[in-house]
Amino acid sequence: MKVANLVGTRFKERPGDCVIDSHALMVRGGYMKYVGNGIFSEFPTLRRVTKKIEEIIRQEMDAIDGQEVLFPVVLPADLWDESGRYESVGSELLRFTDRNKSRMVLGMTHEEAAVHLVRDYAQSYTKYPFMIYQIQRKFRDEARPRAGMIRVREFTMKDAYSFHTSQEDLEQYYQVCYEAYNRIFKRAGVPEVITVASDSGMMGGNLSHEYMLLTPVGEDSIVICQECDYRANMEAAENKMVNEDAGEMAELTYVETPNCKTIEEVCAFLKSDVEKSCKAVVYQKNADDKFVVAFVRGDYEINETKLRNLVGEEIHVADITEEDPLVAGYIGPCGISGEVEVYVDVTLKGIGSLVAGANKEGFHVTGLNLERDVKDVTYVDIAKVKEGSVCPCCGKKAITIKRGIEVGNIFQLGTKYTKSMNMTYVDENGQQQYPIMGCYGIGVGRLAASICEAHHDEYGPIWPISIAPWEIELCVIRADDPEAKKAGDELYEKLQRAGEDVIYDDRDVRPGAMFSDADLIGAPIRVVVSPRNLKENVVEITTRDKSVQESVPMSEALEYIRELKAKLYRQLEEA
Amino acid sequence: MKVANLVGTRFKERPGDCVIDSHALMVRGGYMKYVGNGIFSEFPTLRRVTKKIEEIIRQEMDAIDGQEVLFPVVLPADLWDESGRYESVGSELLRFTDRNKSRMVLGMTHEEAAVHLVRDYAQSYTKYPFMIYQIQRKFRDEARPRAGMIRVREFTMKDAYSFHTSQEDLEQYYQVCYEAYNRIFKRAGVPEVITVASDSGMMGGNLSHEYMLLTPVGEDSIVICQECDYRANMEAAENKMVNEDAGEMAELTYVETPNCKTIEEVCAFLKSDVEKSCKAVVYQKNADDKFVVAFVRGDYEINETKLRNLVGEEIHVADITEEDPLVAGYIGPCGISGEVEVYVDVTLKGIGSLVAGANKEGFHVTGLNLERDVKDVTYVDIAKVKEGSVCPCCGKKAITIKRGIEVGNIFQLGTKYTKSMNMTYVDENGQQQYPIMGCYGIGVGRLAASICEAHHDEYGPIWPISIAPWEIELCVIRADDPEAKKAGDELYEKLQRAGEDVIYDDRDVRPGAMFSDADLIGAPIRVVVSPRNLKENVVEITTRDKSVQESVPMSEALEYIRELKAKLYRQLEEA
Repeated sequence: MKVANLVGTRFKERPGDCVIDSHALMVRGGYMKYVGNGIFSEFPTLRRVTKKIEEIIRQEMDAIDGQEVLFPVVLPADLWDESGRYESVGSELLRFTDRNKSRMVLGMTHEEAAVHLVRDYAQSYTKYPFMIYQIQRKFRDEARPRAGMIRVREFTMKDAYSFHTSQEDLEQYYQVCYEAYNRIFKRAGVPEVITVASDSGMMGGNLSHEYMLLTPVGEDSIVICQECDYRANMEAAENKMVNEDAGEMAELTYVETPNCKTIEEVCAFLKSDVEKSCKAVVYQKNADDKFVVAFVRGDYEINETKLRNLVGEEIHVADITEEDPLVAGYIGPCGISGEVEVYVDVTLKGIGSLVAGANKEGFHVTGLNLERDVKDVTYVDIAKVKEGSVCPCCGKKAITIKRGIEVGNIFQLGTKYTKSMNMTYVDENGQQQYPIMGCYGIGVGRLAASICEAHHDEYGPIWPISIAPWEIELCVIRADDPEAKKAGDELYEKLQRAGEDVIYDDRDVRPGAMFSDADLIGAPIRVVVSPRNLKENVVEITTRDKSVQESVPMSEALEYIRELKAKLYRQLEEA
Repeated sequence: MKVANLVGTRFKERPGDCVIDSHALMVRGGYMKYVGNGIFSEFPTLRRVTKKIEEIIRQEMDAIDGQEVLFPVVLPADLWDESGRYESVGSELLRFTDRNKSRMVLGMTHEEAAVHLVRDYAQSYTKYPFMIYQIQRKFRDEARPRAGMIRVREFTMKDAYSFHTSQEDLEQYYQVCYEAYNRIFKRAGVPEVITVASDSGMMGGNLSHEYMLLTPVGEDSIVICQECDYRANMEAAENKMVNEDAGEMAELTYVETPNCKTIEEVCAFLKSDVEKSCKAVVYQKNADDKFVVAFVRGDYEINETKLRNLVGEEIHVADITEEDPLVAGYIGPCGISGEVEVYVDVTLKGIGSLVAGANKEGFHVTGLNLERDVKDVTYVDIAKVKEGSVCPCCGKKAITIKRGIEVGNIFQLGTKYTKSMNMTYVDENGQQQYPIMGCYGIGVGRLAASICEAHHDEYGPIWPISIAPWEIELCVIRADDPEAKKAGDELYEKLQRAGEDVIYDDRDVRPGAMFSDADLIGAPIRVVVSPRNLKENVVEITTRDKSVQESVPMSEALEYIRELKAKLYRQLEEA
């Protein structure tokens, strides 16, 4: 391939609508083109990257006995009725009707399709365990696509589904898959990807892990213990705080707090400590709009995922009107009335004397002691973990919070789908059983963009050799010089004959333009032929990350390149 | 891979809903699973076949300088507004709205997306020519999906788009692509695929070819000259008939023809020859319901595609009511009144005396001579070609009609899309020009099913080695015999270490069950280890098509298999 023929425009100016670097570089480098909100086309340069990623994933899935299949993008709604997700999933599931008015959906994940494919096949325990996977397009009607290929609506995903006859067997395979994922990220040049425990959300099931590439532009918050191995997604992180300083008890007193709506305003007005206040956050159940009131220490935030899991159904932030039993701005745990579900967070436990809402317009209470003043108070864990919290694993105050991009996930699904879709097998004792499932996803385009985000400089991506669009870029400086051009052509020919993955820039352009294009293409090995080098009968060989910069005799160029390539691959293996 | 672990059920009974053999075999063999109307999942066995087909296509597209890209499945309707196809294409284009009420479509073909991808890039003549292609899922909301993977709604397709600055350049590349397609079909084991000229239909443009695999179960009619190279799709085939026997002229006479509605009934009643009659077929324009009357010789049928191309817009079979100016069942070319467009087919030219409708309830005319009785009659070509017709190419009466499955197509699109979507480039003289496009498609799943249809016996597919799910199946008969099992395991190990593409059946099942499964899997090379063979220290090696049946010493098995494999690949090359 010659750069002169490569379809895709490269340019210098950072596009105004690109917030993160990888997005800007992938637009500037002719990798991707915006088609619609959260929808992109891949230019040849990116397609080469995604194909290499797909192939690494495929090899690692095959190595753990995965069998590649293909599910449709368009699925009949019936299947999603069976699992109950046609109703339960929000508008990110794109629903439509076909020409015959049949209800259809666009596959955003394929648990239903996987169960459908194998439920006739796997009716005997002798067929288990097995794993099937596909690499296929998916569509998720995201409300807010962002950051280029990081959060899109249409994407290519590898999704795998394993089926087991026991929890132990699932756990064993889960571990195998866990390691295969580590190998995938290592081979793709991002060994720094970490795993975190996560909430399994709408997927159902119990245990799950996310693979996170830490980067300040990531959209996920990750809770990490600096003392032990504890790592969790913010959504799943247990908040293990203890109020060591209980403070003194006091008498429960009603005080007027005019125009104080937020807990910060109240505490400022009363000159009391926010850490000794009780904040109310009100939600409503999606199904029937019933109120759910969450109380938390004034300086904490509610973790809606944990609250949702406790409530057991979908909730949304409440819209309180004057007819409602709740007095917006003045809600407190003492004397709250009406049909409301109340949850009290552990951050409130053990505080001697609290400021809280009085459930009366314009009034708060001081001196509230939950154990004394509220009947049967039960503490639950519904607060967001904060920097410096106590680690739920080692118990040390060593929690730090980082940002990351989720590049993969693995779930222990249990029997959620096999039960709802009535997939059974006959066990060794002739009994009908529900198989236990695991599922395992990696977004291909998002991984490409994440690697670019993690490995770039101001000039372009610094692709790991395993997924670079080309391993080698050959540049001929002064292509108008017949001798230089001839030497370049000959080396190109030689590299091609040797089966090397090389792109050749023989355009008659200034070196600056040629090199800035090469930086955007990001091939890890660059070989430069120029009249000046030719005088000494050498070529200049550098790596994109500048770790290698050598003048190599022309006659030894091919061998040097091959050794350098092998070294770069070795570095990935050893990372 | 062991057969014991292969996901997918194989069984004996032909499913009642499978009309054609390939469909029945691919269901019986655990290749595909019905998900919804025209929508299937691929089991591992089929996915291996489609991946191999995809790879052959990819290699051949790369070899003619194709650059692989990826377009989205879901496209904003704007793009289709630009080309005008959002309006002009029927309900096979699936339209829907997303969560933000934006109008979207599912890509059934990607001309719009291709132009969108490159129109910023290719603004100078120096960028031309180039070709981009993708291998991607598509959805076409077919009214009548049928025949398993032959006519489905969702499918994987390779679609390629080339861009040129002159018609000559397009034609040259078209020829290059034409040959690449022949190589693809040859490598995929169906060198018998023929090309036929076709109507380019809704794609626009002029010249196009379809690649047809001839089979009695094909849904397309293909017009083939037995004397020369002429081949055309029925839709595009020119009807070159001449009425050699004009017959005598006669006086124009009105005759009563009670209860004779069809031309056959009229001719039977009048005891006249159907070949001397004029049949009327009435259509209406989709846009405004205006009538279009087509006259053709009584024994011919109307080719609606040719008529549609002449009319220049979409038409449908008319629904004539009593208020309309036309007298259903009695319509003739003489004295036809009202606002109707009339087309007279060449099959009527030169007949001395015709029977035709009288445009009066219950009456026909005899003795009609078009040149004499109808003013300014112009003859057009709107009839379907019949067996034994005159070849429009060599002029001999040697036309035969066969049935085939379209497995690929190539189109010269011209500037239809670049003009409508305003893609231009600056030519050598500084003038704005519209690029000229070609497009080139192959349906992957349909090709797999067509090959199965063309190459199978009653027991299963006979896959060409290049696309077989596995090249080799190793069977051990009497796996309960430790010695046989050991010999089988060792040979399997040896084949795997040698990198061979082998599936191993070591199940303890009866030979009949094992072989019928092997027939359904259809690996071209079968290697059988059995206690009986072991006594003589041989293995039995056969090909799926029975052309090879050899006992080979165990020690030479690997080498024999390799040579046989090379021979089977050579046969494809030489076909």
